[in-house]
Amino acid sequence: MAAEIVNPRSDSGADGAQDELFDPAFALHRGGKMAIRATVPVRDRDDLSLAYTPGVAKVCSAIAEQPELVHDYTWKSQVVAVVTDGSAVLGLGDIGPEASLPVMEGKAILFKQFGGVDAVPLALDCRDVDELVDTVARLAPSFGGINLEDISAPRCFEVERKLQERVDIPVFHDDQHGTAVVTLAALRNAATLTERPLGRLRAVISGAGAAGVAIAKILVEAGIGDVAVCDRKGIVSQDREDLNSVKRDLAGYTNKAGLSGSLESALKGADVFIGVSGGTVPEEAVASMAENALIFAMANPTPEIHPDVARKYAAVVATGRSDYPNQINNVLAFPGIFAGALQVRASRITEGMKLAAAEALAAVVADELSAECVIPSPFDERVAPAVTAAVAAAARAEGVARR
Amino acid sequence: MAAEIVNPRSDSGADGAQDELFDPAFALHRGGKMAIRATVPVRDRDDLSLAYTPGVAKVCSAIAEQPELVHDYTWKSQVVAVVTDGSAVLGLGDIGPEASLPVMEGKAILFKQFGGVDAVPLALDCRDVDELVDTVARLAPSFGGINLEDISAPRCFEVERKLQERVDIPVFHDDQHGTAVVTLAALRNAATLTERPLGRLRAVISGAGAAGVAIAKILVEAGIGDVAVCDRKGIVSQDREDLNSVKRDLAGYTNKAGLSGSLESALKGADVFIGVSGGTVPEEAVASMAENALIFAMANPTPEIHPDVARKYAAVVATGRSDYPNQINNVLAFPGIFAGALQVRASRITEGMKLAAAEALAAVVADELSAECVIPSPFDERVAPAVTAAVAAAARAEGVARR
Repeated sequence: MAAEIVNPRSDSGADGAQDELFDPAFALHRGGKMAIRATVPVRDRDDLSLAYTPGVAKVCSAIAEQPELVHDYTWKSQVVAVVTDGSAVLGLGDIGPEASLPVMEGKAILFKQFGGVDAVPLALDCRDVDELVDTVARLAPSFGGINLEDISAPRCFEVERKLQERVDIPVFHDDQHGTAVVTLAALRNAATLTERPLGRLRAVISGAGAAGVAIAKILVEAGIGDVAVCDRKGIVSQDREDLNSVKRDLAGYTNKAGLSGSLESALKGADVFIGVSGGTVPEEAVASMAENALIFAMANPTPEIHPDVARKYAAVVATGRSDYPNQINNVLAFPGIFAGALQVRASRITEGMKLAAAEALAAVVADELSAECVIPSPFDERVAPAVTAAVAAAARAEGVARR
Repeated sequence: MAAEIVNPRSDSGADGAQDELFDPAFALHRGGKMAIRATVPVRDRDDLSLAYTPGVAKVCSAIAEQPELVHDYTWKSQVVAVVTDGSAVLGLGDIGPEASLPVMEGKAILFKQFGGVDAVPLALDCRDVDELVDTVARLAPSFGGINLEDISAPRCFEVERKLQERVDIPVFHDDQHGTAVVTLAALRNAATLTERPLGRLRAVISGAGAAGVAIAKILVEAGIGDVAVCDRKGIVSQDREDLNSVKRDLAGYTNKAGLSGSLESALKGADVFIGVSGGTVPEEAVASMAENALIFAMANPTPEIHPDVARKYAAVVATGRSDYPNQINNVLAFPGIFAGALQVRASRITEGMKLAAAEALAAVVADELSAECVIPSPFDERVAPAVTAAVAAAARAEGVARR
């Protein structure tokens, strides 16, 4: 095939050859991690006249007359845009759009591998909230959903909210909701394992960025007893005067106990620690938690509490790392959540759909629950179909499905 | 693989089922024509830790330090955005972004099939020239090139110019330049066949839209004797006062003979007719052309002059249709032009690169030249490699290559 002869991929240059000598990650990344594939034949004139002119014109005209046919006759309802501005990439921070592309490509292939969802990495060269919203809103006709990624807080909250108001396809900031869904699933199972309803648990979240805020929100929705969120200055509470609007909202629906003070003081007698901040928690503070504590220290690569220390005090320990049990990994959520939303052509991803995703994810390991298994492995093949089905059903139940 | 189980593509609905009964184009288009494919394995934790976190972080950091590495370690230099606003789609006109998607997907798979170039269809929901330019400029970090498609004239000229000023990757409006390159290639061979240098030919172009303007420009650059462009009101000439800025420019570098009047009057004694307008040309006007006329009646599906009529008066007849000899088809140009530009990481596609593409394309059939073969078939496997190599070499010669 002509394609192979002239593929620019095959013509690799010398740049980066040095790095490749030392690290397999560079060798793997050479030429990128993804490609486009035609799903219809283009072998001869007959093929061409169906897939392109003149045959394609009939399909275009049909969509112009009946706009919803775009879901049937294009890849729109199978493809998600993975959008970033490169402002908060992994633990690397603000490295800009180009340097964020390897992460976005990685995300795209995870969408495909785990959810059967096509995804296109779009790293945008703009930072203003309204410019980001305008840009992505203009892209919406070509996609079935928008996965926002690695956009810094608090801008990420406003971008997501404004964008969802503008477009009729799901907008989902994975750093928030993917993390929140998987955390809730693990916490549900950990609570079951230690024989306590969620309503009896008091949780402390270290970190009030994208993940911390979203976890607090979903835990409250799921009926947690109480949750206190801590930022660098301590417990987020209504008497603080240094809060931005997102944290002011947070203070309104968390911290029913009216705690104030440090993370360490919040941890005294707490049942759950959830770390999404980096930093370290002193062992004395861990020791001050309630019996049968549940410790989710999710900072990567260095958990806020080392798993060996956590295990001394906790009934269940989870981290963000793949080399310890109970990895809280977003890949357990986003592929199935989008696959479910796309399947029913949902116009948005509601709180109910996220809760349903968490329940379905937790249920996957219900029969094999143990302190080392409160959440499935990312490679558990039951996960994506279970999450997909639950999310599609919830979308129908909540009236946001279009088929 | 989990992907297959939950692939939303497999869950087809009932919409459009009626149409499919009657037309194979609808059946072929169901679910779209393209998909994403991972080019690296994601089978287990080791794969995941190289392709995604934590391994990917090193690649991101390297790009942040040395921005040009983005070409080596992502798909950027293999992927082109196929961008439209849906304002001038095929012969259908302004059908909007969603309805244009089947054409853009078609274009994307032609890029892959014929040039080995990955391409992503982006149909934008905006019409203002500056908004289009802003939007695409913000997308530029993720792509190696921008193929503009089916944007109405005269906006298309301004969008292309302003966008190319903003970004450091090639911007190429295929309706203009793809058509112009293929037309010039065919005309070169037709002139050779009829033993006349381009400098001795006088051409008449019917149509002063995207294609007509670009063809006029490239013919002048290639050294055509003279060219007169006709719009609906007749020959574009400097004494007309109803011209927009694009046509005023055009009047400056075409029509050296200073003709005015109708298309029919322009055709008297002309050597070449190039139709990119639709409409029909009366047989008397065709009969009034010079001996050994070259007639390229490219309107689709109805050529401006029926090939059977044209053949009575012309030495060479070409059309835009696949069921007559000498099809002027853009697919002969755009895949190789972008493959060549991407191969050397060109910052733009210069006039010299387009001329080189036309020469290379013409040369493919130099040894088998006949009145029925002045241009290769779209399925001639020699085409894309020849165009790719010529464009890459021209980019280097013109100083716009970055490797």
